[in-house]
Amino acid sequence: MAAEKPLRIDIALLHYPVVNRCCEIIGSAVTNLDLHDLARAGRTYGIDTCWIVTPYEDQQELAGQIVRHWTDGHGGTVNPDRKEALSLLAIRADLAMVLAEATAKWGEQPLVLATCARPRENTLGYEKVRGLIRQDRPLLLLFGTAWGLAPEVLAGVDATLPPLRGQGDFNHLSVRSAVAIILDRLLGLR
Amino acid sequence: MAAEKPLRIDIALLHYPVVNRCCEIIGSAVTNLDLHDLARAGRTYGIDTCWIVTPYEDQQELAGQIVRHWTDGHGGTVNPDRKEALSLLAIRADLAMVLAEATAKWGEQPLVLATCARPRENTLGYEKVRGLIRQDRPLLLLFGTAWGLAPEVLAGVDATLPPLRGQGDFNHLSVRSAVAIILDRLLGLR
Repeated sequence: MAAEKPLRIDIALLHYPVVNRCCEIIGSAVTNLDLHDLARAGRTYGIDTCWIVTPYEDQQELAGQIVRHWTDGHGGTVNPDRKEALSLLAIRADLAMVLAEATAKWGEQPLVLATCARPRENTLGYEKVRGLIRQDRPLLLLFGTAWGLAPEVLAGVDATLPPLRGQGDFNHLSVRSAVAIILDRLLGLR
Repeated sequence: MAAEKPLRIDIALLHYPVVNRCCEIIGSAVTNLDLHDLARAGRTYGIDTCWIVTPYEDQQELAGQIVRHWTDGHGGTVNPDRKEALSLLAIRADLAMVLAEATAKWGEQPLVLATCARPRENTLGYEKVRGLIRQDRPLLLLFGTAWGLAPEVLAGVDATLPPLRGQGDFNHLSVRSAVAIILDRLLGLR
């Protein structure tokens, strides 16, 4: 899986609709280090666009200011690697916009895969998805902030990746860690 | 590699001695989300202790306050999973103290493995280390903040894990992402 031609894989980090610990639908706040860590992992693993999804205009503005500091502002001058990474970020209001833009970009609808810390029906294993990537199938991987993607998002995807398992049953990883691990499982050079 | 008996693996996050982008030796500041992400990944993957290493007393105090908020304070009441994770954290002034305590705890000196984004001689591959873990060899994995572990640390370890590679040559991952990926490579259930 050498990077001879660009991969057609995007990731999206959803801040709404997600759930809180009581399984209620909420909108979460944008976290600065999520933007950096997703962009850096995305650039390392050959992701085309990291979509940052929030419907709140003040959060879009905040995220945009952070991104521009590194892509157009002083940050990028001081640290060009960070500029290269954060150039992957694109802020959008909802998943429908992301899907429409990704479809237009690739010329076909991407396979939309959710991630979830709980087991789901309709899963597609990591090795299987690695195989689809080799066949140049465009992919959109969805990650949820807070306690994860809302049921309405999970219900609308093509499939879900299996929960990450370490040792035992505890799997309360940060979304930053989950993104890094999943990209490595799907795209890492072993 | 089921978690029948506890693993004997620690990780240590060094804030000194590390290097800056000019390869000068510096001490870095403790980052709140590093503590959370390492503790959560550590707990997920069966790590015994996550050592947070800084020689600066004000930084030790700050890190201690954060940890205690979640282990003894209000944070742990609200979010018991976070309490369980952050209980893994222990703050120490230098690597020598960590090594002495880990050796006393295991009854033998752990194999000390560094991580580094640049290729090194004396590397030990991920599959090889998975094998050592199966043989119950105690391990101490070292991670550096800033631009990575100082040469004097790298010179003193038993071996170094190979750099993480995604697609292409860009590998500017955050230390949070690197910890997550490396724990998954060594300890993840596939």
